[in-house]
Order: sequence, then C-alpha cells, then structure tokens
Amino acid sequence: MQNIIKGFSRLDKEEKIDRITSMFTADAAKSTALLNSYIHHDAAVQKVHDGFAENTLSNYFLPYGIAPNVMVNGRLYAVPMVIEESSVVAAASKAAAFWAERGGFKARVDGMEKKGQIHLYYRGDKSVFVEFFESNREALLNAARPITEKMTARGGGISSFMLKDLTHVEDDYFQVDISAITMDSMGANFINSTLECIAGEMKRLFKEQEVSGELEVIMCILSNYTPACVAHVEVEARVEDMAYAGMDGKTFAERFVRAVKMAELCVERAVTHNKGIMNGVDAVVLATGNDFRAVEACAHAYAAREGRYSSLSHAYIKEGVFCFWMDIPLALGTVGGLTRLHPLAGLSMDIMGHPSASELMMITAAVGLAQNFGAVSSLVTSGIQRGHMKMHLNNILLSLGANDDQITAAKEFFKDRTVSHSAVAEFLERNK
Amino acid sequence: MQNIIKGFSRLDKEEKIDRITSMFTADAAKSTALLNSYIHHDAAVQKVHDGFAENTLSNYFLPYGIAPNVMVNGRLYAVPMVIEESSVVAAASKAAAFWAERGGFKARVDGMEKKGQIHLYYRGDKSVFVEFFESNREALLNAARPITEKMTARGGGISSFMLKDLTHVEDDYFQVDISAITMDSMGANFINSTLECIAGEMKRLFKEQEVSGELEVIMCILSNYTPACVAHVEVEARVEDMAYAGMDGKTFAERFVRAVKMAELCVERAVTHNKGIMNGVDAVVLATGNDFRAVEACAHAYAAREGRYSSLSHAYIKEGVFCFWMDIPLALGTVGGLTRLHPLAGLSMDIMGHPSASELMMITAAVGLAQNFGAVSSLVTSGIQRGHMKMHLNNILLSLGANDDQITAAKEFFKDRTVSHSAVAEFLERNK
Repeated sequence: MQNIIKGFSRLDKEEKIDRITSMFTADAAKSTALLNSYIHHDAAVQKVHDGFAENTLSNYFLPYGIAPNVMVNGRLYAVPMVIEESSVVAAASKAAAFWAERGGFKARVDGMEKKGQIHLYYRGDKSVFVEFFESNREALLNAARPITEKMTARGGGISSFMLKDLTHVEDDYFQVDISAITMDSMGANFINSTLECIAGEMKRLFKEQEVSGELEVIMCILSNYTPACVAHVEVEARVEDMAYAGMDGKTFAERFVRAVKMAELCVERAVTHNKGIMNGVDAVVLATGNDFRAVEACAHAYAAREGRYSSLSHAYIKEGVFCFWMDIPLALGTVGGLTRLHPLAGLSMDIMGHPSASELMMITAAVGLAQNFGAVSSLVTSGIQRGHMKMHLNNILLSLGANDDQITAAKEFFKDRTVSHSAVAEFLERNK
Repeated sequence: MQNIIKGFSRLDKEEKIDRITSMFTADAAKSTALLNSYIHHDAAVQKVHDGFAENTLSNYFLPYGIAPNVMVNGRLYAVPMVIEESSVVAAASKAAAFWAERGGFKARVDGMEKKGQIHLYYRGDKSVFVEFFESNREALLNAARPITEKMTARGGGISSFMLKDLTHVEDDYFQVDISAITMDSMGANFINSTLECIAGEMKRLFKEQEVSGELEVIMCILSNYTPACVAHVEVEARVEDMAYAGMDGKTFAERFVRAVKMAELCVERAVTHNKGIMNGVDAVVLATGNDFRAVEACAHAYAAREGRYSSLSHAYIKEGVFCFWMDIPLALGTVGGLTRLHPLAGLSMDIMGHPSASELMMITAAVGLAQNFGAVSSLVTSGIQRGHMKMHLNNILLSLGANDDQITAAKEFFKDRTVSHSAVAEFLERNK
C-alpha cells in the first residue's frame, strides 16, 4: 500500500511540485517545467494568486474574453466573460448585438435580501424557549453590533430576525433566522460572523438566565438560497422584426416560444436549457471574482421551487410582440472576497464602469438571457452542432499540430462539411 | 447614446485589447499592460488557450492546487483542484487524510447512461406517427451509423431508442429519446450529432413515404440531466474512532448526523450544504477540463428529483458505526473536449494515473464527499468563520500591501482573535 503524505501543506511550493511530480507523474522534469511555465513572471503578483487557495502549484488558465454590445437599461456594456467552452462568448455576443439593435435588455432588481440561520435543538417546554428568545431579542441583536454597525451605517444590516419553530419536521428543531442587506458585498462573512456572535450570546444568556430545558446549537451558517435577492431581465420585439438565420420572424419566434415551453414542461430539457443560461451567468461571475458554486446552487434550487424542476426563462407572443424574460436569484458582490483582490476581477469591474452589486446582478442576468437566446436560436434554426463544431474546429486543428496554412485550408474545407475529430485528422493527412 | 461596436470578433487580439481598454477603462495603458502580463510566454501555448473561446484578451488565473491523500477503493490519489475560494482545498485535504486513516472512500459507478432527445410536434393521427416511427426504427438508426459505429466498436453506442408521447403535457408534443453509452468521453458532441442525423433522416423518410399529418422538428439536443450516470461514494467508521477537533467521537458523530438531517429537511440549508459538495466536485471538474455548468445543473436538479430540493448526502449511526454517503450524477469525460487540449488538464489526468471516465467519477464524488465532511465538521465544532477567516487573512494582508514581517506578526496576533478587514487594517496601522 502507498503511504499517506504527511505535512504536505507545510512544504513550500517548489517542494510541493517536486513531491507531486516525482510521486505521481510519468515524467517529473517535464511536469515540473509545465507547471512552472504557467507561473506569473512577477513574483509579487504570483504570491497574491498563490494565497487565494491552499496547496497551490500553479495557475490554471481560463480564457478571459469579452462580449461587447450588452445593452442593459439603455447603457452599452462590454462584459468580461471567463469560460473554457467554445461558442459561448460568440453566442452571447451575437445575441447581445441582436437585442442591442432592438432596444436591449430591460432589467431590474426585485430584492437584495440574503439570509442565514442558527440551527439548533431546544429540548424542553417550547413556550419557555419562545419567551426566552423574545425577551432577549434586543440583547441578542446588540451583541452583534460590533459586526453590524458599519453595515447599518452604509444603509444595510439585519432586516429581519426571528425564531422559527420547525418541530413539525423534526423533534426539537428550531432556527434563528436572520435576513440581511449587505449592500455591495456578497455578505457571506458578514452573515456568518453575525450568526456566530448571536449564537454565542444566546448560549451565554440561556445559561446566565438559568432557562429550563436544554439548548444545543448545531451550527451557524448563511444560506446560499436567496430567492429574495433576485434580478428580472426581459427583451421584447415585434415578431416581424425577428427574422433570424434565414428564417422569417414569425416562424422563428413561434419555434422559439415552443422550445422554451418544452423546457418548462420537461426536466430533461429544463436542465440543459438552464445550463445554457448559466454558461453566460457563470462566465461573468468568474470574471468578477464572485463564487459560481453559490450562484449555481441557488439558481437551480430556485428552478425547482414549485416542486418540479423547470425552465428559468419564459417566452410568449402576444398581439404580435415576442417577449422573453427571466427571474434569477444572484447573490453577487462588487466588494469583498476576490472581487478586488484578483487583478483581472478588478479590471472586469473597471471595464463595466465599477457597477454596484445590483447593477452587476442586472448585467449578469442579461448575459444569462443573451446566452439562452443564442443557444435556443441555434437549436430551432440550424441546430447546435454546426456552430459549435465550427468553433471547436480550431481546438481540434491545434491539438493535431496543424500549421497556419493547414488551419486556413481546413476552415475553408469544413465550411459546408460536418466537423469531427476523425474527419479533421483525415483532412490533415491528405493535406500535409 | 454610445455606439454598438461592429466587427469586434474579427479584430486581432491586440486590436481587441486596444478597443476595450481605450473605450471602457480608466487607464488604457495600465489595463493593457495588466492583460498582457497574464499572457503565456510561449506564443504557441498561448494560441492554444486563445482558441478555447472567442474574443479572448488574456488568461484568467485560478489557483491550481492539490488535495493529497484521497483514498478511493484502497488507492491513494493526489487530486488536482482548481478553485478560487480559500479554505476549500485545505478542508478537502484534511477530510481526505482523516478518512484515509479510516479505510478511505468506497465508491462505485451505478450507471454511465447519457441521454438526448429530438423534440418535435406531430399534428395528425397519433397512431399513424407511431407506426411510422416503429416501421422506420432500423432505417433511422442506420442513418446515424457513420457517427455511432466507432463508439459501438469501442463498446458503447446507442443503448435505447424510443418514441415518447408527451401529448398529455402539450398538444402534439413527442420526443425521440435516445440513451447512449459514450465510454470515456462526456458524449455531448456524439449525442448531438447522432440526434441531428436521425432527425434529418426522419424528416426525409416522412416526406418520401408521404405520411399523413405534419411533422415539425423543433430541436435536437443532448440532456444534461443524467440520473442514470451516477457515482455512489461512502465512508464509515466506528463512532469511538471519530474524535474530531477536541470533541469526543460520539458527540461529534451525533452532531454531524443531525447537521446532515437538517440539510435533508430544510431547503435553505440544503442549498448551502450541496454548494459545499460542489466546491469539491467543481474543483476537480475544472482541473480535468470538464464542464462544471453541466455537472452543476444536473446535480441540483437531481437534488430536487423527489419534488423537494434536499441534501445530496446522508448520514446515520447504526450499531455504533457512523456512515456517510452520497449518490451524485456526474457526466464526465477523460477524452474529448478540453480534457486533453488544456495542458494542465492533461497534467491532472497524469497526476491521477490517467483514470477512465468511471474512475474519474468516483474520485470526483469522493472529493465532493470529503469537502462536505470538512465543511459540516467545522460547522458542528468550531464554526465556519474561524478557519475560513484564518485562510482569508493572507488575502486581506496582501491586499493591504503588508510586508513579510507584518504578515508573520499578523498571523501570530490573529491566532486567537476575530479576523475582519477593518481589524487587519488597524493592526497594520499600529505595526508599520
């Protein structure tokens, strides 16, 4: 049996690389050189990147691209997108330009409230515990004041604070539930620190006041489910102005509406449809140093909020007008976390004109809807593979070591032909 | 009003950078220098990265780290993780080491089947359409043979092919539903190409055979919902061997089980709980060049499959044995897409010993469960903020321009104190 590696985290970076490449890779020298080739030339910058996570060996490159022409509420943005999948940025850009010529995206934020809970058991007489909570409400909130006062001064803070009785789902289960407005920060640290502080005071007061029964705090944690922190985005146009990819406007719009309806009705389709939305959303989330796992978890749980997983976006035609819209929960920040620590996240904010959190929510939702429009438009017209494989052609050519002349020739040859790895390999064989 | 940027995609990279930085950033020269500082020094390598997506200006760095000591089915892996969030790799590594000393993760793959659908309307006599489909079943499958035959030769291919009548949910709505085994590839291109090919042949035969009624194919698309492509992973240990962070084994295990139960019962908690699992899962997905949007969409829809969004993982104590497990759908590939095109994805495969897709599913699921174990363990013992803010301290110090001496002093000072941005700023002010 192999041995467990002890003390790995305490090794310096060179030692970590040496340990991993020598123990696990086929060619340690080559692997080491590869990892080192991805290091930033400026040691101070590299140090910042190394500090973001633990046991870092190098930097993983994801393409940093731009979708120009994203018009939101009349303003044109160039939106940075970080994504490794081909054709996503192209599709978002194309859809954004299509809608910019038709008035752009209309967006609003319907709420910014985030939440967190102290999850606890109280074993005893319920009414005693409720009385304890209510009579100490102010003391509990006061205990958190060192954390909350700055947020309150900025216009945010705790917006609701309540005890929830969940003993109908589990014996003795209660939650202290707080809602908070965290302004331009995502708010995770604020909410978690506040909850931990209140829970500590609660345990102290419970003991000090010799309350009957037993209080067991299991955990304090923000919730990534933020259905009250949500952006609404929509586009509309007259059906006759919707001609697309050689299809007349009416036919295209009707097929589009049917495709969205299918995503509302069928889970197999809904998951992929929403995945397309998130291709756009996550790309902006990553480019701005936000946390895409939080956004993903919330968006998909929200898609299932009515008891059946369904489409996040919707479309209809009414009196000759095509309308396409989405509500999506987005707990984003423009301060805190990596939003200003990652130099390129900082640049992303600059490129978008230093948006507030709510403005970033609207831009991100617009890119998500643009992405969805692009994907569904391809699906109901030429099909997805044609465009996608054309984009992927370049990847295949480079992986097969094609030179510039071969690349040019291959792009011409595959203009009207089906792209596949083997077809490209055969083409290169014939055109050495 | 600002003008729409025309022809952006056709500009070369330098022109794109120039256009964006001059139009949108406060200091074009500085922004350009920043973008260029993230370019790979080897132009050929950079070209490969530029080709992954469109309108690329530079590379977005995410930390490429390692969780050592991930034992799956008796084998020790060092698992590459790509994640920007502090404390995730540390938590996964700690949990992995804890379980490696207790027999490690037991994992299996319960299925590898992926799916796709031709979504269509048939307007006419249903029985005529069903008869048309059944009498042409072989011809339709034959039409896709140029695409499917290689996959079949490798042991995969189409595993089921059926017409689904969905007219009970929407008038005239049918699906041609295929299931496929795509071996070590994620299979998106295979499934999409197969569906488009079959749909084309279907339209041709429908016309050629002068079938009554009207056939309208709306779209052909794989489904990212893959509940039959699923990994199971579990750990178990005797309760007395579960002492953790100063808590005795029984108390810890009982609190842990309760915390997981809360995630099963409460959507606010379930979303965050599963988000923690995905912190681990996505980090491996990214490090191997797979598509995290696809994995995210599927995992969360799966978490809602019983009509209520709930925890992906579960835990119990039975006869003194603590057991913790999870089923998670994971459509991953070890060939195709970026898995071999991204040099560091290739290195990740090397470090893990070139796993098959099913082996990668098991490793990824194990890291997800490790991550979940780490997060819940912190929550039910010291709380999440302590560890998290300790990890984040370094980020704050670097963002405030602390030098090495200050960093060392600050780490010592904050050992037993609460970390916040303002507390660190004050400390640095006092210790210039």
